[in-house]
Amino acid sequence: MTTSTTAVPFKVADLSLAEAGRHQFRLAENEMPGLMALREEFGPSQPLKGARIAGSLHMTVQTGVLIETLVALGASVRWASCNIFSTQNEAAAAVAVGLTGTVDAPAGVPVFAWKGETLEEYWWCTTQIFDWSAEAAAAGDTWAGPNMILDDGGDATILVHKGREFEAAGAVPPASASDSQEYRVILDTLRASLASSGDRWTKIGDGILGVTEETTTGVHRLYELAKSESLLFPAINVNDSVTKSKFDNKYGIRHSLPDGLNRATDVLIGGKVVFVAGYGDVGKGAAEAMRGQGARVIVSEIDPICALQAVMDGYQVTTIEDVLDQVDIFVTGTGNENVITVDHLLGMKHLAILANVGHFDNEIDIAGLEALAGAERIEIKPQVHEWRLPSGRAILVLSEGRLMNLGNATGHPSFVMSTSFANQVLAQVELYAHGENYGKQVYVLPKHLDEKVARLHLDALGVKLTTLTAEQAHYIGVSVAGPFKVDQYRY
Amino acid sequence: MTTSTTAVPFKVADLSLAEAGRHQFRLAENEMPGLMALREEFGPSQPLKGARIAGSLHMTVQTGVLIETLVALGASVRWASCNIFSTQNEAAAAVAVGLTGTVDAPAGVPVFAWKGETLEEYWWCTTQIFDWSAEAAAAGDTWAGPNMILDDGGDATILVHKGREFEAAGAVPPASASDSQEYRVILDTLRASLASSGDRWTKIGDGILGVTEETTTGVHRLYELAKSESLLFPAINVNDSVTKSKFDNKYGIRHSLPDGLNRATDVLIGGKVVFVAGYGDVGKGAAEAMRGQGARVIVSEIDPICALQAVMDGYQVTTIEDVLDQVDIFVTGTGNENVITVDHLLGMKHLAILANVGHFDNEIDIAGLEALAGAERIEIKPQVHEWRLPSGRAILVLSEGRLMNLGNATGHPSFVMSTSFANQVLAQVELYAHGENYGKQVYVLPKHLDEKVARLHLDALGVKLTTLTAEQAHYIGVSVAGPFKVDQYRY
Amino acid sequence: MTTSTTAVPFKVADLSLAEAGRHQFRLAENEMPGLMALREEFGPSQPLKGARIAGSLHMTVQTGVLIETLVALGASVRWASCNIFSTQNEAAAAVAVGLTGTVDAPAGVPVFAWKGETLEEYWWCTTQIFDWSAEAAAAGDTWAGPNMILDDGGDATILVHKGREFEAAGAVPPASASDSQEYRVILDTLRASLASSGDRWTKIGDGILGVTEETTTGVHRLYELAKSESLLFPAINVNDSVTKSKFDNKYGIRHSLPDGLNRATDVLIGGKVVFVAGYGDVGKGAAEAMRGQGARVIVSEIDPICALQAVMDGYQVTTIEDVLDQVDIFVTGTGNENVITVDHLLGMKHLAILANVGHFDNEIDIAGLEALAGAERIEIKPQVHEWRLPSGRAILVLSEGRLMNLGNATGHPSFVMSTSFANQVLAQVELYAHGENYGKQVYVLPKHLDEKVARLHLDALGVKLTTLTAEQAHYIGVSVAGPFKVDQYRY
Amino acid sequence: MTTSTTAVPFKVADLSLAEAGRHQFRLAENEMPGLMALREEFGPSQPLKGARIAGSLHMTVQTGVLIETLVALGASVRWASCNIFSTQNEAAAAVAVGLTGTVDAPAGVPVFAWKGETLEEYWWCTTQIFDWSAEAAAAGDTWAGPNMILDDGGDATILVHKGREFEAAGAVPPASASDSQEYRVILDTLRASLASSGDRWTKIGDGILGVTEETTTGVHRLYELAKSESLLFPAINVNDSVTKSKFDNKYGIRHSLPDGLNRATDVLIGGKVVFVAGYGDVGKGAAEAMRGQGARVIVSEIDPICALQAVMDGYQVTTIEDVLDQVDIFVTGTGNENVITVDHLLGMKHLAILANVGHFDNEIDIAGLEALAGAERIEIKPQVHEWRLPSGRAILVLSEGRLMNLGNATGHPSFVMSTSFANQVLAQVELYAHGENYGKQVYVLPKHLDEKVARLHLDALGVKLTTLTAEQAHYIGVSVAGPFKVDQYRY
Repeated sequence: MTTSTTAVPFKVADLSLAEAGRHQFRLAENEMPGLMALREEFGPSQPLKGARIAGSLHMTVQTGVLIETLVALGASVRWASCNIFSTQNEAAAAVAVGLTGTVDAPAGVPVFAWKGETLEEYWWCTTQIFDWSAEAAAAGDTWAGPNMILDDGGDATILVHKGREFEAAGAVPPASASDSQEYRVILDTLRASLASSGDRWTKIGDGILGVTEETTTGVHRLYELAKSESLLFPAINVNDSVTKSKFDNKYGIRHSLPDGLNRATDVLIGGKVVFVAGYGDVGKGAAEAMRGQGARVIVSEIDPICALQAVMDGYQVTTIEDVLDQVDIFVTGTGNENVITVDHLLGMKHLAILANVGHFDNEIDIAGLEALAGAERIEIKPQVHEWRLPSGRAILVLSEGRLMNLGNATGHPSFVMSTSFANQVLAQVELYAHGENYGKQVYVLPKHLDEKVARLHLDALGVKLTTLTAEQAHYIGVSVAGPFKVDQYRY
Repeated sequence: MTTSTTAVPFKVADLSLAEAGRHQFRLAENEMPGLMALREEFGPSQPLKGARIAGSLHMTVQTGVLIETLVALGASVRWASCNIFSTQNEAAAAVAVGLTGTVDAPAGVPVFAWKGETLEEYWWCTTQIFDWSAEAAAAGDTWAGPNMILDDGGDATILVHKGREFEAAGAVPPASASDSQEYRVILDTLRASLASSGDRWTKIGDGILGVTEETTTGVHRLYELAKSESLLFPAINVNDSVTKSKFDNKYGIRHSLPDGLNRATDVLIGGKVVFVAGYGDVGKGAAEAMRGQGARVIVSEIDPICALQAVMDGYQVTTIEDVLDQVDIFVTGTGNENVITVDHLLGMKHLAILANVGHFDNEIDIAGLEALAGAERIEIKPQVHEWRLPSGRAILVLSEGRLMNLGNATGHPSFVMSTSFANQVLAQVELYAHGENYGKQVYVLPKHLDEKVARLHLDALGVKLTTLTAEQAHYIGVSVAGPFKVDQYRY
Repeated sequence: MTTSTTAVPFKVADLSLAEAGRHQFRLAENEMPGLMALREEFGPSQPLKGARIAGSLHMTVQTGVLIETLVALGASVRWASCNIFSTQNEAAAAVAVGLTGTVDAPAGVPVFAWKGETLEEYWWCTTQIFDWSAEAAAAGDTWAGPNMILDDGGDATILVHKGREFEAAGAVPPASASDSQEYRVILDTLRASLASSGDRWTKIGDGILGVTEETTTGVHRLYELAKSESLLFPAINVNDSVTKSKFDNKYGIRHSLPDGLNRATDVLIGGKVVFVAGYGDVGKGAAEAMRGQGARVIVSEIDPICALQAVMDGYQVTTIEDVLDQVDIFVTGTGNENVITVDHLLGMKHLAILANVGHFDNEIDIAGLEALAGAERIEIKPQVHEWRLPSGRAILVLSEGRLMNLGNATGHPSFVMSTSFANQVLAQVELYAHGENYGKQVYVLPKHLDEKVARLHLDALGVKLTTLTAEQAHYIGVSVAGPFKVDQYRY
Repeated sequence: MTTSTTAVPFKVADLSLAEAGRHQFRLAENEMPGLMALREEFGPSQPLKGARIAGSLHMTVQTGVLIETLVALGASVRWASCNIFSTQNEAAAAVAVGLTGTVDAPAGVPVFAWKGETLEEYWWCTTQIFDWSAEAAAAGDTWAGPNMILDDGGDATILVHKGREFEAAGAVPPASASDSQEYRVILDTLRASLASSGDRWTKIGDGILGVTEETTTGVHRLYELAKSESLLFPAINVNDSVTKSKFDNKYGIRHSLPDGLNRATDVLIGGKVVFVAGYGDVGKGAAEAMRGQGARVIVSEIDPICALQAVMDGYQVTTIEDVLDQVDIFVTGTGNENVITVDHLLGMKHLAILANVGHFDNEIDIAGLEALAGAERIEIKPQVHEWRLPSGRAILVLSEGRLMNLGNATGHPSFVMSTSFANQVLAQVELYAHGENYGKQVYVLPKHLDEKVARLHLDALGVKLTTLTAEQAHYIGVSVAGPFKVDQYRY
C-alpha cells in the first residue's frame, strides 16, 4: 500500500469521477484472470515489498488493475500515462482516490495523468513518477527515488538516461533545427531540472534495479542503449513474450480497431475496402477484424515473407499507390514513418478514413498535413477531424494520427491486457528479486513463465488442457509440465 | 419544406446540440447513397408535394437523412421516435432546428423525441405527430391531419386504429389485470383524447392514404389487422423487401451487435462463448459478427431448416439449458417472448452479458427479473446494469433488455439504413401517388423497385455490375434491365 | 423389390465392379440419414407399392441409396443417368447386380448408365427406362409402362413430350441447321421409335401419374410446358424446396468445387485469385469454399441484389473483362450461356483453370473453343484438358466445360444428396398416392414436408432443437410443431 | 545431367507411365515458381557441378521438379522415397525415364521408389541411393559415393550413421524384444551390408559434405546426433526456415487435409464435428481448412500458449475424452505417439474417420488396433479401411494411420512444395560450396535467404511488394533490401 494519501496532485482526482470508475474495475477484474491469479499466488509472500515502482503506461482501467496487483504484491507505485490522449479520467481518479475493485481499503496511488495533456504537461507528469520525496518524508528519510521502472514506449527510461547524460555534461544542449517539438519539451524539462539539481537523475539512475518494457518501440530503444553500452540497468523485454506480442498485438487490435472505427465514425465496415499497411501481428489482427465485418481487405508489405503470408491468407497485396482511390478506410500498423504521405492523402476518396494503430503519429504524415496550404481542419467530435483538402475532397483523421484504438476507443480490452500485464508483474518480481544477477542488457522472460501466463488465462475461457503421459513427454523430449517448445518456436 | 418554424416543441431543440449533430449529417449523407440518389432523381418532380407524413421511427442521424429526403421530395413531416431509448438527441435537435447536412435552408421539422422518455412521454410524443393544427393554422385551414404514416413497429398505426375503435365504442375500456404497463399508458392516453374529442382519431384515420411499415413486428400487426378486415388503409410492407430484411437485419446486426457490446462493456469478444438464440437474418448476422471477432458461437433454433443452416455454417446448435453455465454472452434475436427466463438467468456464469437484438424487452424476461426477490440492480453506466442475483452471482443486462444495438450503440449504420429507407421513400411515393389503386391490404414493393434500391448502392462500394447480352437475357427469359428473379427467389 | 434379375442389359454389370461399389453404399447410407429414416418410417406401409418409376438422374452411389429407398417403399424402378460423364460405374454395377448396402437381398435394378456415354448411347439409355416389357412379361401382362418419372434436368420428361408430339404429328421433323448435335440425336432416336411404333410415347404419357424434378433447368422446362398448357401430367418441383435449393446448391458446391479442382489439377487454391461468375446459391457456396482455402475471390453478377450481397460478404464484384489476366481459376455458376467467351479465353493467364459448376457446357463457350483455328487440345488425364491457344498461352478446361464437380469429383456428397433425395421420395409418395388431386401444373412441396426433411437430418449432426412452449407458439402465431415460417420466407 | 542411362533399376520405369506423368510436370512447373526462378538464376553458373546427391524424399511430381532443378544446377542425383506409400508411380517413371517438363533432354535419373513398398523393399531402395558404382564405372573410377544428402525424416542420414557405427563395432547387434518391425529390417539390411563390406558406410560417411533435412522429425534426430557429438557432417535444418515450416505445414495441410478426406471418403465435411489434436502449424492449417468447409472444430493441446491461440481463434479446446462420442472426424497433427489410443477408438461414433497428418503411424495407436481381439479390418479401397470393433461399431482408418494427405491425396500441392524445395536447393548450394566452413552441427538458413525464397513466389500470385525509402529503412534500422526482421521474429 502507498503510505501517502495527502499528496495526490492529480488533476481529475475527484470522488464522483472515481465512483464512476469503481464499477468498471469490478468488471475489469473479472476479465483479467491472470492478474487476479497472481494476486492470489503472490499476495501472501509479498515479493514486491520494498519495491518503489515508477510506472509510465496508458492510465486505463486495465492499468488500474495492474497497479492494484503491484500494490497487492507489496509495491509502492507512482504512475503517469505514456500517451497524452489515452488516459481514462475515471480510471485515473479511482486509482488516485483508492476506489478500485476488490482490493480492500487501498489508500490511493499517486497518479499523474489526464485525457488531453499538452506535451509540457505530459513530461511534467513523467517527472513526477520519479519524485518520491513525499514517500521519503513520510518514512522519515531525506531522499528516496524509485527502484524499479515499468515502462511503455520507453519515455520514463529515456528521461532517466538523458537526465543523467546532461548532468554528466553539466548542461542541456540547445534544440537543433531538426528536433521535434516533443524533444524540445524534453530538453526544456531537463534544463529546468538541471537548474535546480545537478545530480537528481544520476541518483535516480543509480537507484534503479531494472526496467520492464511493454512495447516494440521501447524495446528497440533499450536494445540501442545496450548496443552502445549506455544502458544503466537491466531490462526485461516484456513485449517479446509470446503471450504479449502474439496476443496483445493481434487479438487486441482485432478487437479495438473496429471498436474505434465504430465509436469514431459509425461507418458500416461491411462492403468497404480497407487498406492495411503492414502484416505483422498488428496487421494480421486488423485484417482479420475487417474481414470479419465483411470488408474487403488489401494489404501492403515490405517484407516478402509477411507478404506471402498475407496472400496465402486470401488478401490482395499491393502498394498503396495502386489502390489509393478505391479505399474507404486506411489502417496503418507498421511502426514506420510516412507510410501515408501527404501526396497519398491528396489522392484519396472523399471522406476516406485514416486510422493509425501502429505507434507514433508519423505513420501518417500528420505534420505534413498540418503544413499543407489550403487544408482546413474541422472537429467533428473529439479525436475525429475532417480535413478539407485543396483537392476539394475531405478525409477523416482519427485521434490526430495517434493510436486510434486508444484515442477513439478504450484500447485493448481487459482480457488481452491481462496477458500483457501478467508478464509485466512476473518481470517486475523477477528483476526486483534477482536484479543483481542480470547484466546491463535486455532479457526476455523464460519460456516457462510465458507458458505460465497463458495457463493463468485458460480456465476463464473454459479451456481444458490435455496432459502428456510420462511416455509421451519422454517421446518428444520434454517435461510433462513444460516448457513444451524450443526457444525459437514461432507459434 | 415545413412552413412552421415557430412551433418546435422539442425538449432538446437547442442550437448547440444541433451544431454538434450537423457534422454527423454530412458524414451520414456520404454513407446513404440510396437516399441521396433518390433526392437527385425525384427532387425536381416533387412527388411528395402535399404529403403530410406522420413518422414514427428511431430518431437517429440516419432517420434525419430520411426526413430530409422526404422533405426534399416535397413532403411535410412530423416525427416521433418509436423507442424510448433510441433517440440521438443531437440528431433530433439538428432536425428540429434545421441544421442538417446538405439540404439548403430547411426550416426545421417538428420532432418529438429524446433519449430516455418515460412511457407517458413516449405516447404523448406519438400523439403529437398526428396533430397538424399548427400547419393547418399556418395554411389558414381549420383542421389538418396527416395523410401518410411512416411507421416502425406499428405504434403510430395502432394508435389510430385503437383511437378510432374506442371513439366508435364511445369509451375507452378499463385496463385488465393482464394488460402490460405500456398498454395501460395507451389506454390513458386515448381516454384523455376521448375526453377532449369524440372523433379526432376517426377523422385522422379517414384522412390517411396509407402506411409504410419498417419492421417484422409492425408487419405482423398489419397482417393481423388485414386478416380481421379492420385495416383502415393500404399498407406497404417495407420489411420484406429483400434489400431491407436481408440487409438491415443481417448486415446491420453484424455491425451493431459488436459495437453495442464494446461500448457497453469493453469485454474482449475473442475467445468467449456466445450464445445466439435464433438463426433468422438477425441471428445469422449476429453469429457471423461474433465469429469474426474470434468468439465460439452456439446457436439455438426452433425451426429445423434454420437449425440445419446453422450447423452447416459450422455452429453448434443446441438448447440454452445445455450450455447455460458455459456462455459468456447471450444474444437474443428471435422475435419471441421469454427466450431467456429467470430460471436461465439464475443458472448463468458470473457477469454473463445479456444482449437483446430481437425486438421487445420480453425476449429476456426482464419483468420476471424485476420481480425476483433478492435481485439487486446496480447501474454501471446508462443502459448497462449489473443485476446481483440471489444465487450470489451477477449478470450484466444491456439496455434493460431492449434493443441494445440501439440503446448501447447507435443502431444500424447509415449505409444499411440507406437501403431500408430507400425502400421507405419509394413506398411512400408509390402509396401517395397511387394509394387509390390499393385495397386495405398489405403489399410488398415490386421486385424491380427492390432491385432499384440495390442498384442505387453499388457505385459507392465500387461494384461493377455485369450486363446481360440480349441473347443471354433471352436464354434465361428475362429482360436485360431485370427483374432477374422470380418473386419467390430466396437470395 | 424388382422381380426381374434376368434382364440387366447393363454394360458395366459385372460382379467385381459391384463388389467394389458395395462398401461405398454402406458408408453412403451412414451419410444419408434422411433416406434411411424414410425407409424406417414408410417401409412397413409400402406407399410406393405398384409404382413403376422411370428414373433419370446421375448414377452415383448416392442415387443408388435413393433407388434402394424407392424399392424399400415398394416401387419398381428402371434407371438411366442424366449426364454422359457422371456415372460411377461401380455404383451402377452394384445397383444393377443388387449388392448395395443394407437392404436385404435386393434382386438388382435395371440400370442403363456408364461413365463416358456417347450422345447416341445416352439417349438409348434414356429410352430404356420407359421399356417395361420385361417386367410386363414377368407379370404375364402384354404391356407395361412407367407410371412415375423421377427426373433431373428434364430429359426423361422431354422425351415423352416430344415422342408424343411427333406421334400426334405422324412424323419426326428433319433437323434444322441451328439444331444442336444433341437435339439431332433426340430426333434420330424418336424417328427410329416412330418407325417401330406409332403410339408408344402416347401410351407412355397416358400412363404417367406425375413427375418429380430435381433441378432448376428441369423445373424451368416444366414451367414452360405448363405455361403453354402442354404439360401432360402433374409435376412437383423438388428443386425449390428450401432443403434442396439452399442446401444442395450452396453446401454441395462448397464441398465439391474444391474437391473437383484438387482431383483434376492438384493446384494450391490458397493465395490464388478465383473468379466466380454468379452469386446465386451455387456462387455463394463456391465463393465460400474458395475463401475457406485462402483464395481471393472476385465475383461477377448481373442482379444488383445479389451483387450487393456479394460485396457485403466481402468480395470484390466486377466484370470478367476487368480482371481477366489476373485470375487463376474461373468458376461459372450462372445457368446462363456464354458467360465465358472465346475472347475471354484468349485473354487469360497461362494455364488458367476453367471450372463450370452451373449447368450446361455452354456457360463456357466450349463449342467456340473447339471451332477456334489454331487451338490444340491435349488430354492431361480424363476430364482434364489443356488447350493450347493461338495466343501462345494455354488454359486448362475441366470436364470439357460440363459440371466439373461431377466430372472431376463425385458430385455432391451423400449428406447433401440425402436432403435433396428425401424431398424426391416425399414427392414421389405424394404424387403416386394423390396424383389425381393435382392438375397438370407445377407444384412445390408444402413447408411442413420441407421442415420434415430438415428434421430428419439433425440427429446425425448432433443438433438439439429447441421446442416452443405453447405460450411462445401462440405469441408468434404458429403451431408448436411448425411450420414456423410464411411461405415467402427467404432463409 | 546424369550420365548413366543404362542403370535404371526402377520397378515402374515404363514409358507409358512416364508419358502419363509428363503432362503433370508441365503443370507442376507452372506452380513451382521458386524452383523455376532458381534454375534461371543458377543454371548458367552450375553451382552443383560435381555434386552427387543421395536424395530420400516422397517421390512425387513436385519432387521430380526438385530433382530436375538440382540436375539443372549441375548435380548428379539418385533418389528414393522416404515413405512406403507416398510415391506417385507416374512421377517416378517420368523422372527415371527422363520425360519431365521443360528441361531439355534429361537422360533420366536413377529412381528407387514405388507406391506400396514393403519395409524390406523400402530399405533396399534407400541403400541404392548410396550406391554410385554405375556412375563411377561410367567415369572410369573404381569407387564413388554421394557427397551430399537431401533427406526427409532422416532415414538416409540414419542409415549412414548406423552403418558406420556397426562397421566400427564390427557387428550388427541382434534385435531386442522392444525393437520395432522397421528397426529389425534396418538391422537386417545393415547386417547384409556388413557381410559384403566392412567399410562401405564408413567410406560413404567420410565422403559426405553435408545433409539438408526437410522435416521436424529429421531435424530432431539431427539435433540429437549433434548433442551427442556423433553427427558426421554439417546439416542444414531446412524445416525451420519460415518459408518452410510456416508455409508447408500450415498452408500445405490446409489444402491437402480436405483433399485427402474427400478422395478417401467423399463425406460431407460441412456440419460435421472435427477434432484436431495439436494446434501447431499443422493443426492451425487443419482447423482453418475444416472451418472453411463449414465443420465445427474442437482442438486439443498440451501447450497452454497454443491452447490460448486456439481459443482466441474461436475453437473449443478440450480433451479428446470429453467429446469422444460427438466427433465425426479425428485429425492428428501433434508429432507425438498414442494421441489416439485403442480405448479412444472403442468409444467413438460409428464410422468416425481417423486421419493422421502428423508424422508416424503411432499418433493413432495402429499397432494396438491390430492387436485388438475381435477387431476386423475391411478394405473399402486402397488406403481406406473400415475396422469393425468389438463394440459393434466401426471406424474408418485412412492410410493405415500414416500421413493421409500423402496416402489418400497427393501431398502438399506444388506451390507449397516450391517454397520448401527452394529452401532445399539454396541449402544444397550453400553446403556444397561452403561445407568446409561449417562444423558438424545443425544450422538454419540465414534470414536473407528465407526472404529470398518468399520473394521468388510473389510474382506468381500477383503480389506487389512495397519498397522502403532510404529514410524509412534508416528509421527502423534495416537495409532497404532486407532482411527486415530480427532472427527471433515469430511471423
